[in-house]
Amino acid sequence: MTDRPSPSEFELIARYFAPLAAASPGALGLTDDAALAKPPSGHHHVVAVDTLIQGVHFMADDPPALIARKLLRVNLSDIAAMGAVPKHYLLALSIAPGIGEDWLEEFTAGLQADQDEFGVGLLGGDTTSTPGPATLSLTAIGEVPDGGELRRSTAHPGDLIYVSGTIGDAALGLRVLNGELSGLTAAAAAMLVDRYRIPRPRVKLGPALCGLATATTDISDGLVADVGHISETSGVGARIEADSVPLSDASVEALASDPSAMQFILTGGDDYELAFTANPQSANAVDGLAKSTGTQITAIGQVTATGGVSVVDKSKKLISLNTIGYDHF
Amino acid sequence: MTDRPSPSEFELIARYFAPLAAASPGALGLTDDAALAKPPSGHHHVVAVDTLIQGVHFMADDPPALIARKLLRVNLSDIAAMGAVPKHYLLALSIAPGIGEDWLEEFTAGLQADQDEFGVGLLGGDTTSTPGPATLSLTAIGEVPDGGELRRSTAHPGDLIYVSGTIGDAALGLRVLNGELSGLTAAAAAMLVDRYRIPRPRVKLGPALCGLATATTDISDGLVADVGHISETSGVGARIEADSVPLSDASVEALASDPSAMQFILTGGDDYELAFTANPQSANAVDGLAKSTGTQITAIGQVTATGGVSVVDKSKKLISLNTIGYDHF
Repeated sequence: MTDRPSPSEFELIARYFAPLAAASPGALGLTDDAALAKPPSGHHHVVAVDTLIQGVHFMADDPPALIARKLLRVNLSDIAAMGAVPKHYLLALSIAPGIGEDWLEEFTAGLQADQDEFGVGLLGGDTTSTPGPATLSLTAIGEVPDGGELRRSTAHPGDLIYVSGTIGDAALGLRVLNGELSGLTAAAAAMLVDRYRIPRPRVKLGPALCGLATATTDISDGLVADVGHISETSGVGARIEADSVPLSDASVEALASDPSAMQFILTGGDDYELAFTANPQSANAVDGLAKSTGTQITAIGQVTATGGVSVVDKSKKLISLNTIGYDHF
Repeated sequence: MTDRPSPSEFELIARYFAPLAAASPGALGLTDDAALAKPPSGHHHVVAVDTLIQGVHFMADDPPALIARKLLRVNLSDIAAMGAVPKHYLLALSIAPGIGEDWLEEFTAGLQADQDEFGVGLLGGDTTSTPGPATLSLTAIGEVPDGGELRRSTAHPGDLIYVSGTIGDAALGLRVLNGELSGLTAAAAAMLVDRYRIPRPRVKLGPALCGLATATTDISDGLVADVGHISETSGVGARIEADSVPLSDASVEALASDPSAMQFILTGGDDYELAFTANPQSANAVDGLAKSTGTQITAIGQVTATGGVSVVDKSKKLISLNTIGYDHF
């Protein structure tokens, strides 16, 4: 990839990663055994970790900057789902010894772009050489006021169920990439693929939901599965109205040519939108928040006392789903 | 591996990982998008991450409990090197889909044993299925008083250089496993292999060095390389007296049959002992700490104003080293 001599691990850290750590003073320039972090007075740290694996979550020839940004953003989405503001991250990168500095240069450029966008800084990491597929883990750290964190387990029967943004775009984008969705305009196909490649974590909306949402999660496994996590941990049921699920124009186009795509929209995952519940009396406040944060927020159903998660059509008839989301095992 | 039906990711979490999280209330039972942690008043969090890869850092048929304990302990060693007390950890496990519940059961049993020994609790994690070698990352979180953290970059010329325990055992143990060291008694061979397989992180000594050590690191890359990290980041040199480096009886035995083993002792790594510097006026205090903590502590050399790291024999003659430690690239 390059005719420069093969650099040592420490040279790679100094060249590519130390500049990313300048935004986090507690990183100590990445020259120590560990890093320092402290939440502001009256706050907790919120910590999440996620892994992306080559050949599973991304392809070997995907642009390295996009892989880096996806890796960071899926974790920021978890931090946002807890109502926290993201601050730091640690990287555990297992990459092929011959991956080349070009790859690292583009990968870290992607991280730098997202650090600037989201106001986070690299805090520490570990870079190892692997004989297997690249395996990239990121630990994200955010800050939330004591007792202000949003949970999955606190939904009440009668609460309305909301989602941010539009649902299903990323799942359809993956199918475009796999050649499983055709007949779309080029613009629609490109929009869906972009949504698959670059999640938009709801880092502003998450903290703004503190005190308003009764329960929150991000949508990574699929709308039905993730609402299911709220339902299971809260000991309640949930009814989702399929016709209320907000769709992008591109998804509407995909559905027009293949109505079975609804399955992927409801269960495909990778949305990185927020799903949350709120008391119906808070409906005006939710509308106000949508306006003040410039976020599309849509009520898609209601929490029930029992019954698991069901999806109904406009005549309230149950829709059968072949799968309720992505499971790794 | 088992005739039970293949469990879902969420069932695996509930069965094997949620019990480990009971020790960390902020883990929220592993049912949320992220976890909560807060250092006590007047303290910082200290955070480190390390990865072990099958075929590189451990073998596929190594006992899963030993792999788990090594994974945790190498990270606890980093936390101790900063003078912090370990509290929590997060796991990012990428494992083969067919790895079997027996493996997970033994792996988590190893973690439970070490949680009990070191007083830490699982805070969160991510479990993914990989087509490649098992890749296990752990993020450890400790607590250190504000301003009390130990650094690598703060050694002064004239300081004495100390190490805990004995050096080189793990590196020789790896060579026993590889059939590269013979002529040892069975007891000596077993002791060296055990030191390779199960690091003993200096979790008591690290925090006790606050206010006494001028600079600290753990020894993972190799004695010479890690003293080199202190030297480089502090802008000083270091002279190590080879004859002062503390050896176990088993290492002495290995050296007697093969004097070239000294190379591996000085540069092999995986010691997970602490190397630290202290003002010569603190020598009595260091001796006292050795006694009060029951830790072998040995002066092995001195910080110099310039000159990088050199190793000298008893006649002060420079010893040439073929390599200065393990480098991943």
